Amino acid sequence: MFKTIFKKPFFQPAGSGPSAGAASESADQAAELLMTPAALMPLTLEEARVVVRYMQPQLVAKGTIFMRQGDGRDTGFMLLLLSGEVTVEMLVPSRIEPLVITLLGPGSLIGELGLLDGQPRHATCVAVTPLRCAVLTREALEQLMQDNAPVAAKLLLGISVRSGARLRELTDKLKMYAQLTQAMEQEIGSRVNP
Amino acid sequence: MFKTIFKKPFFQPAGSGPSAGAASESADQAAELLMTPAALMPLTLEEARVVVRYMQPQLVAKGTIFMRQGDGRDTGFMLLLLSGEVTVEMLVPSRIEPLVITLLGPGSLIGELGLLDGQPRHATCVAVTPLRCAVLTREALEQLMQDNAPVAAKLLLGISVRSGARLRELTDKLKMYAQLTQAMEQEIGSRVNP
Repeated sequence: MFKTIFKKPFFQPAGSGPSAGAASESADQAAELLMTPAALMPLTLEEARVVVRYMQPQLVAKGTIFMRQGDGRDTGFMLLLLSGEVTVEMLVPSRIEPLVITLLGPGSLIGELGLLDGQPRHATCVAVTPLRCAVLTREALEQLMQDNAPVAAKLLLGISVRSGARLRELTDKLKMYAQLTQAMEQEIGSRVNP
Repeated sequence: MFKTIFKKPFFQPAGSGPSAGAASESADQAAELLMTPAALMPLTLEEARVVVRYMQPQLVAKGTIFMRQGDGRDTGFMLLLLSGEVTVEMLVPSRIEPLVITLLGPGSLIGELGLLDGQPRHATCVAVTPLRCAVLTREALEQLMQDNAPVAAKLLLGISVRSGARLRELTDKLKMYAQLTQAMEQEIGSRVNP
């Protein structure tokens, strides 16, 4: 669905002309959300503003499925969520309803894995509310790497840190499931041999 | 346990002097393993060799616990495994034996999350066999970012891609567990109300 964004204008630098108002506010907000304070070498606000100039503003209507599990063609972008909420869902063979993996809010990066490795999308993302986003395409990232490698390196470090936080989170969930299934196994076992 | 590595020599560039033999072979191997072909903008062999010059060779004896779950002090390094095998284990409250999360072989990156965000180690890593590794410290990464940002950016992109692959893997495991617990719930339910 984001094929159209390639023709869209980029964010303008903050304070660039009288008509810049709302867009420039979004650009500032995008820069602040990109900073990833958890990283040990985070982007400064000024560096984050450089990244934002390679991004495009995008509105998404409520209810839109803007990323589809298994889609291997439309992988060339990631979104930074500025406002609104998104559910991340996965189809599970034995269930009719998809499994809701997580709910994402402002500041979340969405689709960064596909952007970097081009693999098919691993989950489906649905806009639960209207969304305001900043889009980074693969072409724009490549251009940023060429134009300003130090800033690109810090951005990629920030992306790694976010993936890392999700990895830790998922590992904890997995640990919880391992405990749960063990308890259930015991429950089933005790009924077979009471 | 890797506090000592900070005094160790770095890998020498390939073919640097007559005594370089084994170390230079390891350096070449490290460079090849760093290339991450899954990334869309992978390191070239030449660029990977640049990274390796910021790494230090390290041998680890069989049975060594070289990373400990919960350790928040010794997080300033990651390992690239050149040869040998490592188990990644987690302590789970209800179990006496730790849960073996995965077995890692040559080419694996270990500890890259802590390197980038300084958070306590999330799992325990044990050398199942003797290991040959290449170590990248946080100081060396910062130096690489200063000296050669384009190569650092591609390295960080490669790290992101690897984290991404692990995220996809963990998500699949989680999906499997979700199905398993659902089946077990039904099993338990059917016995209560046969």
